[in-house]
Amino acid sequence: MTKLYGIGVGPGDSELLTMKAVKALQSLDIIYTPFAHKGQRSVAEKIASPYFKADLVIKRRHFPMTLDLTEKEKSWKVIVSEIIDDVKAGHNVGFITLGDPSVYSTYSYLLDLIDHQIPVETIAGISSFQQIAAATSIPLVLDDELLEVIPATADMSLIEKAVDINDNVVLMKVATHWSEIFGLLASKKLLGQAIVISNASMANQQSFKVAELTKETKLPYFSTLILKKKYQF
Amino acid sequence: MTKLYGIGVGPGDSELLTMKAVKALQSLDIIYTPFAHKGQRSVAEKIASPYFKADLVIKRRHFPMTLDLTEKEKSWKVIVSEIIDDVKAGHNVGFITLGDPSVYSTYSYLLDLIDHQIPVETIAGISSFQQIAAATSIPLVLDDELLEVIPATADMSLIEKAVDINDNVVLMKVATHWSEIFGLLASKKLLGQAIVISNASMANQQSFKVAELTKETKLPYFSTLILKKKYQF
Repeated sequence: MTKLYGIGVGPGDSELLTMKAVKALQSLDIIYTPFAHKGQRSVAEKIASPYFKADLVIKRRHFPMTLDLTEKEKSWKVIVSEIIDDVKAGHNVGFITLGDPSVYSTYSYLLDLIDHQIPVETIAGISSFQQIAAATSIPLVLDDELLEVIPATADMSLIEKAVDINDNVVLMKVATHWSEIFGLLASKKLLGQAIVISNASMANQQSFKVAELTKETKLPYFSTLILKKKYQF
Repeated sequence: MTKLYGIGVGPGDSELLTMKAVKALQSLDIIYTPFAHKGQRSVAEKIASPYFKADLVIKRRHFPMTLDLTEKEKSWKVIVSEIIDDVKAGHNVGFITLGDPSVYSTYSYLLDLIDHQIPVETIAGISSFQQIAAATSIPLVLDDELLEVIPATADMSLIEKAVDINDNVVLMKVATHWSEIFGLLASKKLLGQAIVISNASMANQQSFKVAELTKETKLPYFSTLILKKKYQF
């Protein structure tokens, strides 16, 4: 029976896919992959491409990067209906996502719209924050400690509460809200306890001690901050 | 140059290792693996063993399961000194951990004790909670939402605070503190919003709707709870 595979391709290095993800990729007839701007290959596609079969049909589709949910849903519905048709026509179909498909991924919305009309298998991937911990050999969380994962787009009062109760905080995509995040950490005297890693496991990976940055620093789009209150970076 | 590889083997299914983890395993001369009771193969060893070279030297070592940190450190120091000797003698050495070596792993303590005396490479693995989300095709976290990961051994007042501010909570190893955890969720009328998965991705995986359990339920040791306030299980 054919199905849709939702495949996490990890943060950047093609070796960070699981064996299961590679096996699923190699069983595909068709792959759907997002691009934000017409004609560009997505980062996820570049990561997964070493495992593509020669005759794999690649369907690059536009996923609008807008805050307008109605506009996004309109595009998603078209893609979902294509995917359903392809699976029902007897093809194994894949949808690839950067990192883990269960962690801040458009895939979750597609699943909602698919609403059990076709069989689906989700394959976990390594998240950027896990790779950052691995690359720096810094534990994310130990013993009885808590770990909080927060997108920098969340409400600042909620981010503040989360920073207050947790020893370990991962702040995702901090670039667009850097000035507020930096200000919060400065006000709590936590600048020395935080690092930022940009483009984790990609060729252009960079790391920054937050204490050496300023409110004005321009960070790359894929930038993740790790705060560890018991650490000194 | 030889080194120590800290390798995450994922939650149970041998296909959930990354390509990088498999490549590292195949480059090893010696592997260190924990067992809790003398003579038993650890779960991590069973998961990784399909990738062992025929001449791999397996050094099973005892990691005491005690709350006495001094006793644990005594054992760890002996193992770390063995590992350092093996790497300095020109061997590639591996240490395998269930899940991700950066998430609640003894590996972090070994790293502390190794204290840069030998080169180390850490390889991320899929955590049980990621696999649970994948297996059930339930997103862990979306949009501006927060995700909290808490060990059930943490202070109950802290767990309560974390449950209050987060839409998505992963409670690790809930079996030993089930009665308190169940009580907390019941008091907040959140039983219907939680599931427990035991032995994720292993042959004996089980899942339970928390609303169908009681304070007295005996859960398997490897049991993880996922609370999603916006969901109804």
